[in-house]
Amino acid sequence: MKSYKSMSKEELSALKAELEKAYEDAKGKGLKLNMARGLPSAEQLDMEADFFNTLNPMSEFHSEAGVDCRNYGELIGIAEARKLMGDMMGVNPDNVIIFGNSSLNIMYDTVARSMIHGVCGSTPWCKLDKVKFLCPVPGYDRHFAITEQFGIEMINIPMTEDGPDMDMVEQYVNNDPAVKGIWCVPKYANPSGVTYSDETVKRFAALKPAAEDFRIYWDNAYIIHHLYNGKQEELLEILSECEKAGNPDMVYEFCSTSKITFPGSGVAAIATSAKNVEYIRKIITIQTIGHDKLNQLRHVRYFKNIEGMNNHMKKHAEIVRPKFDLVLDTFEKELKDTEIGTWTKPHGGYFVSFNSLNGCAKEIVAMCKEAGVTLTGAGATYPYKKDPDDSNIRIAPTFPPIGELAQALEVFVLCVKLVSVKKLLEA
Amino acid sequence: MKSYKSMSKEELSALKAELEKAYEDAKGKGLKLNMARGLPSAEQLDMEADFFNTLNPMSEFHSEAGVDCRNYGELIGIAEARKLMGDMMGVNPDNVIIFGNSSLNIMYDTVARSMIHGVCGSTPWCKLDKVKFLCPVPGYDRHFAITEQFGIEMINIPMTEDGPDMDMVEQYVNNDPAVKGIWCVPKYANPSGVTYSDETVKRFAALKPAAEDFRIYWDNAYIIHHLYNGKQEELLEILSECEKAGNPDMVYEFCSTSKITFPGSGVAAIATSAKNVEYIRKIITIQTIGHDKLNQLRHVRYFKNIEGMNNHMKKHAEIVRPKFDLVLDTFEKELKDTEIGTWTKPHGGYFVSFNSLNGCAKEIVAMCKEAGVTLTGAGATYPYKKDPDDSNIRIAPTFPPIGELAQALEVFVLCVKLVSVKKLLEA
Repeated sequence: MKSYKSMSKEELSALKAELEKAYEDAKGKGLKLNMARGLPSAEQLDMEADFFNTLNPMSEFHSEAGVDCRNYGELIGIAEARKLMGDMMGVNPDNVIIFGNSSLNIMYDTVARSMIHGVCGSTPWCKLDKVKFLCPVPGYDRHFAITEQFGIEMINIPMTEDGPDMDMVEQYVNNDPAVKGIWCVPKYANPSGVTYSDETVKRFAALKPAAEDFRIYWDNAYIIHHLYNGKQEELLEILSECEKAGNPDMVYEFCSTSKITFPGSGVAAIATSAKNVEYIRKIITIQTIGHDKLNQLRHVRYFKNIEGMNNHMKKHAEIVRPKFDLVLDTFEKELKDTEIGTWTKPHGGYFVSFNSLNGCAKEIVAMCKEAGVTLTGAGATYPYKKDPDDSNIRIAPTFPPIGELAQALEVFVLCVKLVSVKKLLEA
Repeated sequence: MKSYKSMSKEELSALKAELEKAYEDAKGKGLKLNMARGLPSAEQLDMEADFFNTLNPMSEFHSEAGVDCRNYGELIGIAEARKLMGDMMGVNPDNVIIFGNSSLNIMYDTVARSMIHGVCGSTPWCKLDKVKFLCPVPGYDRHFAITEQFGIEMINIPMTEDGPDMDMVEQYVNNDPAVKGIWCVPKYANPSGVTYSDETVKRFAALKPAAEDFRIYWDNAYIIHHLYNGKQEELLEILSECEKAGNPDMVYEFCSTSKITFPGSGVAAIATSAKNVEYIRKIITIQTIGHDKLNQLRHVRYFKNIEGMNNHMKKHAEIVRPKFDLVLDTFEKELKDTEIGTWTKPHGGYFVSFNSLNGCAKEIVAMCKEAGVTLTGAGATYPYKKDPDDSNIRIAPTFPPIGELAQALEVFVLCVKLVSVKKLLEA
């Protein structure tokens, strides 16, 4: 393909006319396709049917320790669920607290707790003039929405191929006591697909925070969500790295089975140091009597152990991989050498991150929407929804059936081309 | 039986010796019985076995509106679950938000939200010098624990046979802008068993709060938890009463199926005005993507409708009623006319409230514990665990099998008698 940047005005104008006609045709199809969020597809969910056999009228509802999981109690989760989620994160079950169905809810509550009660005895953040969080960008919009709702100032940290720019992270964390946290998706990051390098993890663990209540918010949402056999990326286990570096209490790790069993009906957990576990337990014992232990039991009985869970994820990959391949093949075929877009080639997770020419993302997303294809809002991957380059678009290919995905991608590349041509003509 | 108060010192001393011997015998039995909390019994939980047939591998997982309940979404709950919980509370489904498994968690988060964000635009409570809650006493310890954890000052309001002392409630609410809430269990109250009278509810609805962000925290935990056919108590529906009185936004009503299906694996909900629903929805959309819809679906399919739920509660009553009868029969037989204790005779709920002679409750509970019978801690039914009379003890008879309950009650009345005799001898 030819570089759009090397085209003459005449060539661009001719191409524009052609693309505009194609766009009108596309609009005429009356499409109604949604790629806005990272949802599993119905096909993935169907796979889990046997899950509903794990508890039945003839079941034994007691945990291994003899707890009747139908009744109250077990604030931090039944032992076998803590073990399973601990194995998923590569940590000791003693470091794990099981919550309800949503790791996002744990993150929100963790920030809320810090606002009201402080962190292990520190001043509650609501009593401070200024609280800041570092936000690697592009990142996960729901993280940024939490800190925005609490009035926490967000600072953009550029992502590299090894994770966040650690020079900047160190500069902020080690010098500014108002910096209380950083949002991280360390594996198959949302949306870039990057897995943090060993050096990045070690530099995180070796931070010397100016604030005693600084914590790393380590959202390991895609920890076992590999796409390709043989291309599984490895992430250093952060709790033990922090401990080795003399910072045992510096990290909260979050994970869930939302994209392993069912979004909304999974099990979510936090992993953190013994001191943090004890502090959190002390606070949450007033918030609830306990989370859904029957659902914990369902999960443990369905997977049996971490090997069961890993095998299960291979089946998810079988369903999801062709969709990622289709995205990458389409981009390669339609956009290669055009110099109007770059994109990531992730080995896991739920997203492809696309960068258009600067100043084009909003219009691309708007034109897609007008043609019946809903994408994640442009800017969503940045704090305050402000992408300074108006360039990043998150592609979430998992939800639509593959035929619909192909249609949606056709519209998407068409809009990328058309908006880019118009931009280049303006220049 | 003879009144202990009319006994001579000699009679009391003789009785004391006799009771002390009986107590030593009781201790020798090595009992290990727990009546501390209002837990359903295993027999009640066994009744629900068919619940686990409601979703099976062959199930259709879509809601009536076509929502795939296995996937993300439906922040405030699927329509049919909102309808079922609305019918339970006697309110329009539009006024209902479904949350996770725990109404206590909703209450905690409702207070937390007010601390951080304020109430529908009011100043966040964490920015105020003083926030106060009214606490009808005796009341539910977990309510008081929430307000205590947030540093909210609690003010005791005596309970009468018609509900809280409304003269005091009006005095505080209508004059002190620091009073932001009142904890209520309006039906079969914990622990007194009282159902608020129509006049009490109407006076609540007609409050003229000095604080715009004052709310009634109406914990309708036992709304359909009747004990006796034909003695079902009726409670006026508070949302419509508040609306009629021109205070539509003044109440948050909470309920759950924790003691209908499973504690920890039920469905919990709030009912409140359209304005409050909208405000809460705006905040919680950042906290979570949605709660467990499969569990909502399980509940709707199991009960079908409110009639199904009410019929189900009759089966619970069959199991629970004999335990209450045993408590009341034992007290009647052992303590009538002794003038060393009074007790409630509830028509629903989970508790009997016992009042000993002043200054005796702590010692009675301690002596029971020493003899292997764990009761709710003395003082637990008061804010800061401080019962000014040291008199109230909450009896929770539902959990132990009836044979064990009989043993526990034997120990209890023995301890009541012994501690009372010692008290009277001191006088």
